[in-house]
Amino acid sequence: MQLSEKIKQSIRDVKDYPKPGIIFKDITPVLANPTLRKEIVQALVQQFSNQKIDAIASTEARGFIFGSILAYELGVPFILVRKAGKLPYHTKSEEYNLEYGTAKVEMHIDAVKPGWHVLVHDDLLATGGTAGATANLIQHLDGIIAGFSFIINLSFLPGAENLEKRFGIKSHFLVSY
Amino acid sequence: MQLSEKIKQSIRDVKDYPKPGIIFKDITPVLANPTLRKEIVQALVQQFSNQKIDAIASTEARGFIFGSILAYELGVPFILVRKAGKLPYHTKSEEYNLEYGTAKVEMHIDAVKPGWHVLVHDDLLATGGTAGATANLIQHLDGIIAGFSFIINLSFLPGAENLEKRFGIKSHFLVSY
Repeated sequence: MQLSEKIKQSIRDVKDYPKPGIIFKDITPVLANPTLRKEIVQALVQQFSNQKIDAIASTEARGFIFGSILAYELGVPFILVRKAGKLPYHTKSEEYNLEYGTAKVEMHIDAVKPGWHVLVHDDLLATGGTAGATANLIQHLDGIIAGFSFIINLSFLPGAENLEKRFGIKSHFLVSY
Repeated sequence: MQLSEKIKQSIRDVKDYPKPGIIFKDITPVLANPTLRKEIVQALVQQFSNQKIDAIASTEARGFIFGSILAYELGVPFILVRKAGKLPYHTKSEEYNLEYGTAKVEMHIDAVKPGWHVLVHDDLLATGGTAGATANLIQHLDGIIAGFSFIINLSFLPGAENLEKRFGIKSHFLVSY
């Protein structure tokens, strides 16, 4: 069976979460399956095997789960992207639009060394707001965006298009709905 | 140099975060050092090498960073412990006391299989409130606490004593302040 099929069979659809009408893609059954998790990590690594990657940047909290393993497997630094006020040291902030209102993510000012190729990883690509804000933070700190890596893409939302339009980079993902 | 010394030299003290008078132990420089990260993971695995471990449970967000790698290295399921309302499926909740007021953590009701030996991992042990609530959730779901694993212990707070009193289990950590 293809990896994408295995992932889809493992992901749990939760209806009406976080609000009525939404079907949430729950990855916790994937985390309960060590064999599948290992295949996912290998596939994520494989997608960027021809590229220079100096660090992985992921947003809290779910982005940390595979982002941290990915950085560990590649032997590169792991950069935390957190909600406003959660990082203790001096930070650079980036605001982005939500459906209603705005949100803000932050990175430590010394998290990216100038010229580093930083791969942005999160578990799910929806509108691309968080990934785009993370990419902006990397550029503000004189880093280069190595790519966008996701496990799940919601193709009925314009996340991949938005990121390509803004940064000229195609997003990589393992399954698409 | 001893691993504990290497970790201490890498951790950054941030004064007056999250509030005046507190010196915060910032682990982000550790995450920027792949060699040190690898040694930490090996040491965490080593501490429980004689014990049966069926899964790792960690609390968001910082607990996910090393907890996820630890589960990956051991080839066991990774269980998410999250703040109230953040897990999509049916959950079991546990309230615990903070300095002022209370907090609540949750686990999916199918996260622990009956009889599983679950290791609780977080980056830092302070009063043991979150780790204790996580252990309660494991027991409510008929799991067995395999142990408590931390990178940093704040020995001027009674976390290790509290956990030993409540669960009869000694906490393991790599550095103590």
